[in-house]
Amino acid sequence: MPENIGAAARAMANFGLKELRLVVPRDGWPNPRAYTLAGHASSILDAAKVFMSTREASADCTTLYATTARGREMVKPTLTPLEAMQTIAHATKGKSGFLFGPERTGLTNDDVTLCDALVTIPTASGQASLNVAQSVVVLCYQWFTHHTADVTPLVQTTGKQASPIAGKSPPASKEELSQFFDQLESALDAADFWNVAEKKPRMWLNLRNIFTRAALTEQEVRSLHGVIGVLGKSTK
Amino acid sequence: MPENIGAAARAMANFGLKELRLVVPRDGWPNPRAYTLAGHASSILDAAKVFMSTREASADCTTLYATTARGREMVKPTLTPLEAMQTIAHATKGKSGFLFGPERTGLTNDDVTLCDALVTIPTASGQASLNVAQSVVVLCYQWFTHHTADVTPLVQTTGKQASPIAGKSPPASKEELSQFFDQLESALDAADFWNVAEKKPRMWLNLRNIFTRAALTEQEVRSLHGVIGVLGKSTK
Repeated sequence: MPENIGAAARAMANFGLKELRLVVPRDGWPNPRAYTLAGHASSILDAAKVFMSTREASADCTTLYATTARGREMVKPTLTPLEAMQTIAHATKGKSGFLFGPERTGLTNDDVTLCDALVTIPTASGQASLNVAQSVVVLCYQWFTHHTADVTPLVQTTGKQASPIAGKSPPASKEELSQFFDQLESALDAADFWNVAEKKPRMWLNLRNIFTRAALTEQEVRSLHGVIGVLGKSTK
Repeated sequence: MPENIGAAARAMANFGLKELRLVVPRDGWPNPRAYTLAGHASSILDAAKVFMSTREASADCTTLYATTARGREMVKPTLTPLEAMQTIAHATKGKSGFLFGPERTGLTNDDVTLCDALVTIPTASGQASLNVAQSVVVLCYQWFTHHTADVTPLVQTTGKQASPIAGKSPPASKEELSQFFDQLESALDAADFWNVAEKKPRMWLNLRNIFTRAALTEQEVRSLHGVIGVLGKSTK
């Protein structure tokens, strides 16, 4: 909804965030209804970029968080907003992004698969009731207060998660990861891996999550390309 | 605006706050436009009390904070949201209230005079741009995270983080992981993956680290066995 986009821009402006990316905005873009809600934050809307897919929108990000109210049956860390900000603060260089889904339907599993972790805003009742614009406010506020506050020492486990990359290679971008997924999927298709076609979506989701969770470096993605290349070669 | 009242109720519901008081609502009360924005929080609107003045509305409060974007020429402490929550937590028994002004005009000086302190949401630019409904979200969120932090000091979430696996399959044992490594190594050997034999030890170490870092479940190890099985099959 354009109103949610405008309200999100307003919250971003207040808390010093500038880069807004939109994936296939339902009612087209630019949209005057968004500007009505944005207040003085129209420059953020002017600069917003539109993408045709989450994959393209997050291509240059090295860290991506899915903001989601519902738990997912996926093997991903679930962080509070504060934990997410702590993790970002200690992450290796590169862009970090927060992904918000449409009001009604939320993020798709394919969207979430690209993400390193889920971020869930706590609720009193266990039942989430914030709308997407309100969720953006909370995340922006938490980002700002965490970054302007004294550097908070990380919880031990967060530290482990924050910089799991011991090697020197920079973290892989989401686009590099997606290209590896393309290659792996082709190889598995060619090898007739899925057995039952209906099971493919869930199986493929689970497989991708393994690699997303590993927070791969560029070098590692190249290695995995090599592995699939050499293993898949003779199956074609 | 009724929309702001509805959105405020929605934020309150999410963060466990129940008592909403309205001072001379501009468009009358009850108002269907508020209910549209309230989502599942209609019970808070049903229970909202209407007063003819701030004085009456705050009569039974022992602590009252004015949420205001602009500084006032009044000798009052100015607190961040977090400081306000810390102060409330140590206040003597009694009701505490947060006062929000109308969107355009804000609180009157008479309103502010009743308050013990000003609460100002920080901004990046020094120029506030949140609307009143967004300010309510921030205060409710800060209240909730501060108060639940007191009761359960992040142990709950930290514990969750220590085992970031949300899925249902138990974590794979090291032996299961090793068996997968055996299979992968055999497949790569058979496919003549390493090129230069001397490089194998380091390359193999790096590859295994990817999977170790992913903290695989039993189910995932089985899936990976399947992947290597089907890809490596025809290379033998």
